Order: sequence, then C-alpha cells, then structure tokens
Amino acid sequence: MKSFQIGDEGRFSKTISESDVYTFAGITGDFNPLHINKVAAEQSRFGRQVVHGALVSAFVSTVLGIYMPGPGTIYLEQKSAFVKPVYIGDTVTAVVTISEIDERRSALLDTKVYNQAGELVLDGYAKVKLPKT
Amino acid sequence: MKSFQIGDEGRFSKTISESDVYTFAGITGDFNPLHINKVAAEQSRFGRQVVHGALVSAFVSTVLGIYMPGPGTIYLEQKSAFVKPVYIGDTVTAVVTISEIDERRSALLDTKVYNQAGELVLDGYAKVKLPKT
Amino acid sequence: MKSFQIGDEGRFSKTISESDVYTFAGITGDFNPLHINKVAAEQSRFGRQVVHGALVSAFVSTVLGIYMPGPGTIYLEQKSAFVKPVYIGDTVTAVVTISEIDERRSALLDTKVYNQAGELVLDGYAKVKLPKT
Amino acid sequence: MKSFQIGDEGRFSKTISESDVYTFAGITGDFNPLHINKVAAEQSRFGRQVVHGALVSAFVSTVLGIYMPGPGTIYLEQKSAFVKPVYIGDTVTAVVTISEIDERRSALLDTKVYNQAGELVLDGYAKVKLPKT
Repeated sequence: MKSFQIGDEGRFSKTISESDVYTFAGITGDFNPLHINKVAAEQSRFGRQVVHGALVSAFVSTVLGIYMPGPGTIYLEQKSAFVKPVYIGDTVTAVVTISEIDERRSALLDTKVYNQAGELVLDGYAKVKLPKT
Repeated sequence: MKSFQIGDEGRFSKTISESDVYTFAGITGDFNPLHINKVAAEQSRFGRQVVHGALVSAFVSTVLGIYMPGPGTIYLEQKSAFVKPVYIGDTVTAVVTISEIDERRSALLDTKVYNQAGELVLDGYAKVKLPKT
Repeated sequence: MKSFQIGDEGRFSKTISESDVYTFAGITGDFNPLHINKVAAEQSRFGRQVVHGALVSAFVSTVLGIYMPGPGTIYLEQKSAFVKPVYIGDTVTAVVTISEIDERRSALLDTKVYNQAGELVLDGYAKVKLPKT
Repeated sequence: MKSFQIGDEGRFSKTISESDVYTFAGITGDFNPLHINKVAAEQSRFGRQVVHGALVSAFVSTVLGIYMPGPGTIYLEQKSAFVKPVYIGDTVTAVVTISEIDERRSALLDTKVYNQAGELVLDGYAKVKLPKT
C-alpha cells in the first residue's frame, strides 16, 4: 500500500515553447494579444510574449496527476497566485509538497512553480483526496 | 475610457472534444489515465474519460483575457473548486462576473463554469487588475 | 519541360475530422459557435457542427500548390462561393481545372469542391502564374 | 437588436508562428515546399518560408465570424487577391469594413490584411448575410 507523508514532494519541468503557447491558445480560445501578438507584446509593459498563467498553473496538475500523489488522486481545489510573468522559452519547474493530511485521506499541498533563474513565478496550494491503495 | 461596474459579466462556451483533451495532455504532460486511457477511465469511479480540471479552469482565463475585462487585464490570482467532473463531449460555459472593485482598479471576480445541463462544474474567484482606459 | 493545357485537372480528397475543425479554429482564432459548440450548432438552422468555409476553401489551395499546377505556382487570386454547408465527418473533394492560359503563363482555373454525395459545396476560380520549368 | 451600418469595422491580429504554418499544412495537406521546406524556400524567389495564402485569408473569416458582423453571419462568398507574401513570424492584422447593405440583410464587406509594416498583403471582399437578432 502506497502511503503518503507530510513533506513528500513531486516535480515536473518543461521548457515552454512558442508552439505550446500557440496550441494552448488554440484549445482554450485565449488569443489575448500578450500571448499571440509579438508586436503588441513588445509594446506592452512585459516587453515580449507572455505564457498564459493558466498553462503555467496546469503544470501543477501534471505533478498531482502523474507524479505525486499520482494516478487516483481526486483534484478538489486549486489556488494560484501569478507572482511573476513567464515568457516563451522559459523553463519552468512545478514543485508540489504535502503539507497536511487528515484521517480521511484529504490532503493540502503546497504548489509552487519556478523559472530557470530559480524565481518563484506561481505560488499556491491544492486540496486533493489521496489515492486509495 | 472603458469603465467597469459590479455585475459586469463575460462568458465563453465550447464543446470539449477528444482532440482538445489529447492536445492538452500533450502540452502539459498530464497523461493521467483518467484523461487519456479509455479502459482505465471506464473502470474508474467516473466511468468514462474526464477532462483535465486545469483545462476547464483555463476557460475562465479566456473570458478574463479576451471578453471581460479583456485585453490589458493583469491576472493576479485564481481559485477554483472542481465541483463536478467534465467529460469529453461536454459543452461548457465559463461565466465571469465582477463582484468587487476598489479605487486602485483591483477587482474580485466570481468565476463559474457550467456544463450543457446547467450544472455547476467549477466554482471560484479571480483577482485581477483591471485594464486602464 | 512541364507544359499545361486547358482542361488539365488535379484533385484532393479528405474526410474532415472533428480534430481538423478544432485545430483550424485554434490556428485562426475562429471560435464561431457553429464550429466549436455542439449545443449552439444543434439549435442553429444547420442542426450540427459546420466546417469553417475557409478550411474547405483551403483544399483548393492544396491542389494548386501540390498537385496541379503544383510547386512553383504563384497564387494570385481566389474567389469562392460557399454554396452548401460542410459538416464534421464529411468527405470533400477539391477539383481544379485549367480554363484559360495566356502567353505570359497566367492561368485561370475553375475551382470546385464536392461532398461525399457529389453535391457542389464550393464554387469559384483561381488566378495563378504557372510554374516555369 | 444588433444593427449594422456602412463603415462598421472589425479587426483581428496575430503573429503567425512556424507551428501555425506546420499545423495548417498538416490539416490541409498543402505541403508546398515554399511553406514547409526551409532549404527550398531559401532557394526560391521568396528567400524564406512563406505562409499559406489560405491561412492569411482565413483571418478574414475569423473577423467575420467572431468580431464583426460576428456569430450568426452567413458567409456567402470570398474574393482574395494575394498582394504580397507573408512570412513566418509576421504579425498580420485582418480588417473588415462594411461597404454595402441591402434591405434583405445582404452585405458587401471590404476585406484587407496588413503586415506589421502596414503593407497590404491581401485585398478583397466578402459577401455575407448579416445576423438577425
């Protein structure tokens, strides 16, 4: 039987390509100029094309569903603060750590995403039901 | 000058196809069997392939970035509770409503997603900085 | 040397899948509910999800660029009348026929697209510069 | 009731990425070397990879279907002259303007696409049936 403890950690890293951002826009319909218009993004306060916050946040769910706690996890709630922008070409690492577990397998997880410079870009938490085993 | 008021609403609807779910898995790396393994999904408590919660949640950001408040909005924070599963083939509608605005253009928005039966599938809120002008 | 004559014909057939339509919406940003919202499409006068006219029209350019006249063709002008709707799952055949050629290698081509029932769905013409050879 | 007037305008902008061009080739089958063969494109009179004219033209239909006149528009006819090549990485803006309306809600629209330098790359017109409401 799989058992989980406070402090257990999982992570996932990916370099976010231009095609990731374009494809994400294509699935979600989020064609905000900051994401898919180079000219408009360069004229904005960000200076270049920004990755959708919802895509950065999705890497948290990748960790939850695949690595830790992994398949069988029921995703109940996600809170994400978008602390810093992520740009096309950045390499992000999502880190998930268990911070609380109760007797009914409900758990609170600390969810953070960092860029390649080690800067925190997303900060939040998830609530899940841990997988039976 | 664009002005926003409490109660302003934006929405976006889409039928979520199998190709959306597969492409989303391909971008994010979330290959949880519930999403991309028909056999495993049918044997699970859900009975069929479930859409990634992070994809359902992304439609909220589509409304924020494109429709209301629209381009220029700075996305600060998102909280989402995954109330009910969404299945491949479901037609979802994301509805965003302004619930608070302060004097510095910070706003709190109510964010809800419904399926084609009118059932609430995602419930939450967003914090944003409203676009200037 | 490749030579072209009035009456020369090229064709290309494809069954248009749901993923084709969703991906096309994703590239172009055309999220018209008729194409990507099953519920709205069923309530419309069309009764089901319609393929983007611009995608149907693109198959004409596939014939021009690949089959006849083929690589080296300069695409100058396209006129398309959308005669009948095309639905997801339909198998379309684009047929291109040379109708005029002048001494400077400019050509007029008849461009038609049919569905699997043999019904004309798109009718038009293209003007091109024929490839040198 | 939505009412339309001569001079009403809608627009849509996007930077066309390499992944857009490759995905468009993948949907349509238009693998003309000018679009997907860097070596051949560099040796051609264009000097680099050209975007499919049919993709540039599709942005016109995005404006028609989503922005102006918007959902409910029936697309009857499109005429496009490909005035200048569009290259991978160009940012295009499609601009649609109503030029004629008759008493039966048929309208003629001026359809133009510009690149980031403000050069006209596509010039044409569309005939549509305006949405009821």
